[in-house]
Parts: sequence; C-alpha cells; structure tokens
Amino acid sequence: MPEFRFELMAVDGAARRGRLHTAWGVIDTPTFMPVGTAATVKAMTFEMVRQTGAQIVLGNTYHLMLRPGAERIARLGGLRRFMGWDGPILTDSGGFQVMSLAARRKLDEKGVVFSSHIDGSRHELTPERSIEIQHLLDATITMQLDECIRLPSERHETERAMELSLRWAERSKQAFQPRQGYGLFGIVQGGTDLELRARSAKGLAAIGFDGYAVGGLAVGEPQALMFETLEGTCPHLPTTHPRYLMGVGKPADMAGAVLRGIDMFDCVMPTRSGRTAQAFTKRGPLNMRNARHADDPRPLDPEADCPATRDYSRAYLHHLVKSEEILGATLLSWNNVWYYQEVMRGLRQAIEDGRSQQFVADMLASEAAGDIPPLPIQKDAR
Amino acid sequence: MPEFRFELMAVDGAARRGRLHTAWGVIDTPTFMPVGTAATVKAMTFEMVRQTGAQIVLGNTYHLMLRPGAERIARLGGLRRFMGWDGPILTDSGGFQVMSLAARRKLDEKGVVFSSHIDGSRHELTPERSIEIQHLLDATITMQLDECIRLPSERHETERAMELSLRWAERSKQAFQPRQGYGLFGIVQGGTDLELRARSAKGLAAIGFDGYAVGGLAVGEPQALMFETLEGTCPHLPTTHPRYLMGVGKPADMAGAVLRGIDMFDCVMPTRSGRTAQAFTKRGPLNMRNARHADDPRPLDPEADCPATRDYSRAYLHHLVKSEEILGATLLSWNNVWYYQEVMRGLRQAIEDGRSQQFVADMLASEAAGDIPPLPIQKDAR
Repeated sequence: MPEFRFELMAVDGAARRGRLHTAWGVIDTPTFMPVGTAATVKAMTFEMVRQTGAQIVLGNTYHLMLRPGAERIARLGGLRRFMGWDGPILTDSGGFQVMSLAARRKLDEKGVVFSSHIDGSRHELTPERSIEIQHLLDATITMQLDECIRLPSERHETERAMELSLRWAERSKQAFQPRQGYGLFGIVQGGTDLELRARSAKGLAAIGFDGYAVGGLAVGEPQALMFETLEGTCPHLPTTHPRYLMGVGKPADMAGAVLRGIDMFDCVMPTRSGRTAQAFTKRGPLNMRNARHADDPRPLDPEADCPATRDYSRAYLHHLVKSEEILGATLLSWNNVWYYQEVMRGLRQAIEDGRSQQFVADMLASEAAGDIPPLPIQKDAR
Repeated sequence: MPEFRFELMAVDGAARRGRLHTAWGVIDTPTFMPVGTAATVKAMTFEMVRQTGAQIVLGNTYHLMLRPGAERIARLGGLRRFMGWDGPILTDSGGFQVMSLAARRKLDEKGVVFSSHIDGSRHELTPERSIEIQHLLDATITMQLDECIRLPSERHETERAMELSLRWAERSKQAFQPRQGYGLFGIVQGGTDLELRARSAKGLAAIGFDGYAVGGLAVGEPQALMFETLEGTCPHLPTTHPRYLMGVGKPADMAGAVLRGIDMFDCVMPTRSGRTAQAFTKRGPLNMRNARHADDPRPLDPEADCPATRDYSRAYLHHLVKSEEILGATLLSWNNVWYYQEVMRGLRQAIEDGRSQQFVADMLASEAAGDIPPLPIQKDAR
C-alpha cells in the first residue's frame, strides 16, 4: 500500500502541478472532485464519472450519517465499495452542512447538536465523532470538523470561530487513526481577515496535517475578495502539502485559485446545473432550455471526448430538458463534470509548460466570447 | 439495404423463433421492445439499452408529434438519429395515447381531433396523418391508426370500432410509402369477441401487411381472457409474418403469449417500475423500498451480465430509492429491461430446443418461489 504523499512536479508562479499518492490511487493536481453527496454523483453512473477523468470523488458526512448511516456503510465495506467507486474518496466533516441544512442547531465548545432535515431526529457531531464517522466511511482523505461562519461577520466572531476551529483541529488530529495511504486535512478559517487567516494557517501547520483546506469561502463573496484571501493565505501553508479550496466553484474561480496556489476543488455546480438545464462549455455556460437550440443539430462540442458533449445534438438536449426527461439531467451533468475535468487537464499541462497565466487568460477569453452563432432556421419539411 | 422480411427459424407448438430483417438491423424474435416514449427510454442511456440485448426500441407518435414535433425530427435526420439509437425503431400510430392522454377528443370516420395534454393546442390525427408523421420520424416499422376501445364494451360498439379500424387499415396502407427494409403493420381489434377478432385478422390479411399486431388487450382484463383471445386470433394470422402483442406486459404475460404464437412485445412496465422502486428478477418482482434490503450486501443477481443487476448491492439500491436519487431509477430500469431481454433470450433458446412449455413452467415456478432469504442482520460495528 503506497504512502499518503504529495509530489510537487512543477511550479509556475504560484501555480503548482502535483501528484497526490493515496492508498486507492493517484490524484493528479490541480484536481476537481465531483460531489457524491448521498453516495452518488447525482444523475450519473460512476462509469460516467470515471470517463470524465475524475480521479477522486467527495462524499458528504452529514447526509451519509443520517442516511443510510455510517455504521451501516462500514458493515457494507465502506463508502467506496458501497457506491462502487474504485478510486480514492474525500469526505467532508459534516460541519458545513449541519450549519446550512440541519434544524435546531446548538453549537458549543464540545461540538454541535442538531436535528435531521429528513426526520427531525437529534444527532451530535463533535470533532471526535466526525473523525469516527469518516473512519467508518473509510474515507481516503478525512476532513477535520470546523465552524464555518457567514460572510461578512464581525471580526471578533470570525476570530472566535477560527480559534474554535483550531482547537477542533487539534482534537481531530488526536482522534484520527493513521493508516497507510490515508490522510487528514486541517481547515483554515478566518473569513476575509488576512491576519486571522495567517494565524489559522500557521496554527494548523504547527499541529501538522497531510493537507490543508481553505474553508469559509465560496459563500457568496465577490471573486476578487476570494482571490485576495487566497493570496493572503496560501503563502502561510507548507509548500510540501496539498491545498484544497472547499466548495469552489465556477471554472473561472478555480482557474484563478490555481494561479494563487490551490491544488484541489469540489463543487456541486456541474451536477446541480446539469439538473437545471445549464451546460458548461469552453464558450461559456449555455441554457439548454433556450429555444435557440430547438433546431440545432450540432453537439455542444464536436471535438470533445465526452459522449454527452460530442454525440448528442443541442436539439436533443433541448428536447430532453423541455420534456423533463431524466436523461437530460444525466447528459448535462456528464458534460459539465467532463468540462470541469477538461479545465483541470488544461491547467496541469499549462503549469508543466510554464504558461498557466496565458492558459487562464485564453480560457476566460474563450468563455467570454460566447457561443457559436445559431444556424439559419430551415424551412419546414412539409 | 436488406428487404423487410420475417424468417421463421423454428416452431415449438404455437411458439415461434424467428428473425425479422429490416433496413437498420436484425431483430431476433420473440423480442421485447423497450419503450422510448419521448425519444428516450426513461432514465437510461441508449448504451445501457443496447447492453441489455434490445435490438429495437419503440417511440410514441402522440408524444413526439406534440413535442418536439414530427417535422422538426425529420429536419434533424429522423428519430433514430435524433435520439442516437443505431438499430431499428417501431412507432405506434398515436391512436392509443390520444384516447388515454389527450383532452377534448372527437372521433369520426375521418380521424380524431384532440387537445394536447401539454399546452391544450388542437391537433388532428387521421390514418393518413399518422402514417405521414411516422414517415417523418423515419420509423422502421409503422403502425396503422386504429381505434382502441375499453374492455368490456357492448358487442355492437366493439364491432363498430373494429370495422372502423379495418377501414383505417386500408387508408393507412394506401398512405404508406414503401421503402426497402421498412414495414407497415396492421392491428387486429375486436375486444375479447373471437368472431370479431377472426374477421379483423382476415380483413387485415386480405389488405396485406408486413406484420400484424394484436391491439386492444392489456387494458386491465384478466390474463386468462387475454390468452383465450390470442388463441382465437393467432390462428387467423399469416404464419409468414411477425405478430406483435401491443402493450404487454409482465414476464408471465409475455411468456404465455409466446406459447400462443406472439413474436413481439412492448411495455412501459420495466422502466416505469424502475422509477417506482420495483426490480424484476428471476425470483419475482422485488420492492427495493422494503427495509429488508437495507443491510443486504448481495446484488440482485450475481450471475447476471447486466452491471446494474450484478455490481450493486441491494443495500445500495435500497439507499438510492429511499434517497430519491436519479441513479436508483437508472439502475432499476436497466436491471428491469435487462431481465425482460433475458426472458426473451431464454424463450428463443427454448423454442429452438423444443422445450418452450418447460421453460415457461420453470420460469413461472422460479418467479413464484420468491426471493432469496434475508441474511441474518450483523451486529452494529460500534
């Protein structure tokens, strides 16, 4: 079984091209991790997920602890086996979704008590229980429990949550059972306050983790503020370990974050958008509900190597969306996850070639230029 | 381009093993045709459909004429190309669904005028227009327009509808443009009145079609009555042409119909059931919502060659269904269509081997014996 180890292969400015070795496979970074909330990347088979080039997927501790339950998944051989994904997985700590989804939350030094959004049942999540659940899920990468607050917040509130998250980081580290090829990540908090971010990063580095996440962003703040926060945070993180920006984002957000030193991403956007008729393409996002596509025999991108992107006409995708057919959600999610991986493939190559700035500029220009012009509408065949 | 031609390879009692040659591929009979109502076999990709062994799929004229429109599909290269299915397709005439789905219907000698269930728009369907629409869809097998009445009905009403269907059969034949490798099927009506069925069958044979369907069954009547009607109908149909029992059914219905001389079937049951947690298996139908599956690591059938049937635990399928995840509908639909094809494969082999009666008896016994016993529930890992 390989060691859990980050191999830094190339740097280009602050951008990094690496390889994360884990018990269950290698992850080329920068990487995008599709989100498999309830043990499924919504509307896709794992064969489709694999075909996009994804090397790791994410599972949500909050959802899985409530249904079907962590102990049950453990008895069934862990989350990878349960859902039939043969690569590494990362699970979040559950903290973020307790804050956004659960009812009747009560947070204190010990942890958080909450009611399930499914059946109202009471549950407790402490740093120790979160680590235990992720162990039961057999997560290749485990995340510490942290407190994620809203932006903007008062500085004293941001500082309190950051300090609490640091103490929870220490308890998470203590609770984590090291296994070869498995890793534990700490999470930097501190809102958009660079001094707090720096203290958080240094505090985590002093404890020592296998990777470092930047949490508390992608909660509605402007992109420039997110980038600024990354610029003030990444330099305080060890260069020897992977850096993960949680919950981000749009392709332009991810590309900009890579230029600032981030290695890993996750986001529900490609799959959620896939269920609401949005297709991500190199020419920007398209609304497949739009009538302009109704008679268009062209695929989203004839040069793509994703079947969903290459083999179906826009007219067919439009029809599926309008008819609310499940296959529409499947094909658009597949296309979107593929496009996200395509962006990552491009970034990795560009960093190796020392032209990451140019790649991102070209990508933004291509997305901004917009879609191919519509075809002239043919006369009715009758 | 091959001729449209039915090759009768073996008979075993009334059961027939054949091959239907068409412009777009060969169909081994007995065959089950998955239903692709709105240009998609619901919740499945066509790659999955193909993997089950399906050789032909069905499209619904009523749905497609309303959305996205037959002329539009024609401009886009026909239904096969539109939806990305490389085999032959059969389209129904639209008549049955006008009767079951449309609002404000008015039927007379000329045809039927109705309102769309989608937007209330008025449409007309005549025998000629139905044939034209199916031509625009580029259906490999076109069905005549018929009038399908409820069971039971008064004899004079059944006779009136049967006679009208015969006159519409004649008009459909006139309207159909013969093309090499393409075929037109007539539809036998007459309710459960064997004298009317015989007159209908003979009338159609006198007009001359490329295949003969039995319509007006599978509308809620007992299985025994359906079988009796088939026994009174099939002997009046040419042995040289394929016979298609429309809208049937459960595996046991299909198997019994094959023993009575039917070659082709279609039904929404495998896909509709797949979206409502039902799994068809050789041990009978299973309700995957049932808590007995929650901890069961076993697949639906470890010996199956369908990934959905073989590679996922019952526990995972149960979880997906309970969580209302799209993948649950996909995997169960895939399993169900595969099982239907497996029944057809078994029937074909059994007819060749002269043991079709025994095969059906064994199949019914296996389905009736019920599911494997549950595993003893393990103790909680904690």
